Amino acid sequence: MVATEVKRVHNFSAGPGVLPVPVLEQAQAEMLSWHDTGMSVMEMSHRSAAFEEIIHTAEVDLRQLLNIPNNYKVIFLQGGASLQFAMLPMNLLGQVQSADYILTGEWSQKAYKEAKKFGQARVAFSSEASGFNRVPAQAELQLDPKAAYTHFTSNNTIYGTEWLTEPMVSTPLVCDASSDIMSRPLDINKYGLLYGGAQKNAGAAGATMVVIREDLLERVPANLATMLDYKLQAEKKSLYNTPPTYSIYIMGLVLKWLQSIGGLPEIERRNIQKSDIVYQAIDRSGGFYRGHAEPTSRSRMNVTFKLPNEDLDKKFAKQSTSLGLDGLKGYRTVGGIRASLYNALPLEAAQALAAFMDDFRRNNG
Amino acid sequence: MVATEVKRVHNFSAGPGVLPVPVLEQAQAEMLSWHDTGMSVMEMSHRSAAFEEIIHTAEVDLRQLLNIPNNYKVIFLQGGASLQFAMLPMNLLGQVQSADYILTGEWSQKAYKEAKKFGQARVAFSSEASGFNRVPAQAELQLDPKAAYTHFTSNNTIYGTEWLTEPMVSTPLVCDASSDIMSRPLDINKYGLLYGGAQKNAGAAGATMVVIREDLLERVPANLATMLDYKLQAEKKSLYNTPPTYSIYIMGLVLKWLQSIGGLPEIERRNIQKSDIVYQAIDRSGGFYRGHAEPTSRSRMNVTFKLPNEDLDKKFAKQSTSLGLDGLKGYRTVGGIRASLYNALPLEAAQALAAFMDDFRRNNG
Repeated sequence: MVATEVKRVHNFSAGPGVLPVPVLEQAQAEMLSWHDTGMSVMEMSHRSAAFEEIIHTAEVDLRQLLNIPNNYKVIFLQGGASLQFAMLPMNLLGQVQSADYILTGEWSQKAYKEAKKFGQARVAFSSEASGFNRVPAQAELQLDPKAAYTHFTSNNTIYGTEWLTEPMVSTPLVCDASSDIMSRPLDINKYGLLYGGAQKNAGAAGATMVVIREDLLERVPANLATMLDYKLQAEKKSLYNTPPTYSIYIMGLVLKWLQSIGGLPEIERRNIQKSDIVYQAIDRSGGFYRGHAEPTSRSRMNVTFKLPNEDLDKKFAKQSTSLGLDGLKGYRTVGGIRASLYNALPLEAAQALAAFMDDFRRNNG
Repeated sequence: MVATEVKRVHNFSAGPGVLPVPVLEQAQAEMLSWHDTGMSVMEMSHRSAAFEEIIHTAEVDLRQLLNIPNNYKVIFLQGGASLQFAMLPMNLLGQVQSADYILTGEWSQKAYKEAKKFGQARVAFSSEASGFNRVPAQAELQLDPKAAYTHFTSNNTIYGTEWLTEPMVSTPLVCDASSDIMSRPLDINKYGLLYGGAQKNAGAAGATMVVIREDLLERVPANLATMLDYKLQAEKKSLYNTPPTYSIYIMGLVLKWLQSIGGLPEIERRNIQKSDIVYQAIDRSGGFYRGHAEPTSRSRMNVTFKLPNEDLDKKFAKQSTSLGLDGLKGYRTVGGIRASLYNALPLEAAQALAAFMDDFRRNNG
């Protein structure tokens, strides 16, 4: 194989991010001919038996891994979570009710702002005053019992916080799970709608997963733009028009990889192990590394921290890059360091980062 | 290389369709590490210098190949032409004017139907009565001189007709060029807006090209869904959110391939040559093969024809597949045979098809 000679970095990118090497190697091997079809997956008609097998298998495997009940539809769309910010209220909000939004960072703010273009929305909680450094306790939520739905963002990539248990609500719970979907088991029965881009834990950019409880499809109004209509997309099984075929194929390979290692319980175990290693490096630093998230809200996906000053932040980012630890620079609006530890990041990468953090502190502390 | 041992078919799929082998080989070679970055293009942050180079180069090359003037913006979006059917009226129609639609097949009908959800639209011509077997002569167009824009579909994949010269209109000309964009030179100055999915002549599914004259962006109303706003997407240079990074990369490779062979004049020459070969096999068949399109409207991209009866259609499709001529079955609603001869289809494939057509006629005529 060509693959074995290739030098790879430890990729801490916040997304699109690292993919499993066996997935990339399989995609590489099949690039000019998938399963003896004599063509690349990219060259297949989306109406061909070969591609129908690919998309059907991806749905079956997603259902198996997330244990999705039969009364939920799975749809593969385009446009990422940002398009869902609009599709959600267009489809499910209506003109009478209001929707609740729990604000724990920039992405939930964007979802809230977008919803207000299409109907009424209110804020059920915000941690903005404390720099979005935590997710709320249940008692802090000011919920509207008549809300059309309650929206939250399960993991906040920019601030490094994560909900490890869902908010308890009496209205349909809607979750933007773009940055932690497929990183741990979920009880789908708690959700009305769950959505997420594939490009962090489940594949390549260009494919968006939507899991929706069937009864909610009855809310979809007539005369929506065809491509933005959940009901129609569900009826057409994501094949109303040409879907992002190659991104769905890559997602399918990642789902098979997740199954091969033991499914979501095993990937959760690995994700806990990796994030513990990095958080421990923060905690033993005597304040040299200051984590942004309150300890009870710490994300397993994105570890965010700052050094004693910005010059050291920059030096840390630069030195780490030169040592093959890539993508550690913090988000452009908040600075500092961000280590994203998605599913496919190997344990050795987290270990290498923690070792570098210790060394850097000794040399600069 | 692994590649040279792989058996490939002649791929006549109507899209997604055949890609240039050198493009697939390069994507294969770079799968685990792009240009010594130590990561796949799929694993790159869309904010990284590496990906910014990829998307910027794709735009520069698209501008060079199509000779796009400076007063036009290029945007890479998601959702295919079907999402453009809605975005176009949402952005450019308004509530006062009406838009003209020229109907030459199923796709233009869908575009027209979608526009009526968002404003007024009227039919400036339809060839439905004759089974969409032709595009109109200029004198047949009943144009509204006050229309917000005039929409046409430059190539009709299902019926196998193509406009080889644009309709002359006094209003902004809008074109769905999904199935012939990049197959020949165009005078972009004739267009207000030109759009097309990449998956037929320019890349993989998941990326949609939009070329729009700057002054039209002033029409974009406030409070559109962010992702559906041409003006915002142009301002953000297609990077408002995570774009379909790998599809843009593949498009970039196809654009480089087009440049390497001599650009759009050379690909047009090849496309004329290939389609002539197949049309000649129809014309010399003494009526055994009946072309759907009137000769003056014949598409260079999709050659559609029927055999003396449906049993022979089926036999033709089956036998050709077994001989490595793949994807020749006609569109599900119209039947018959359809040979798609997109940019990357090699000359030998067209020659092999014509030879098979001659043989099949001799054996079954």
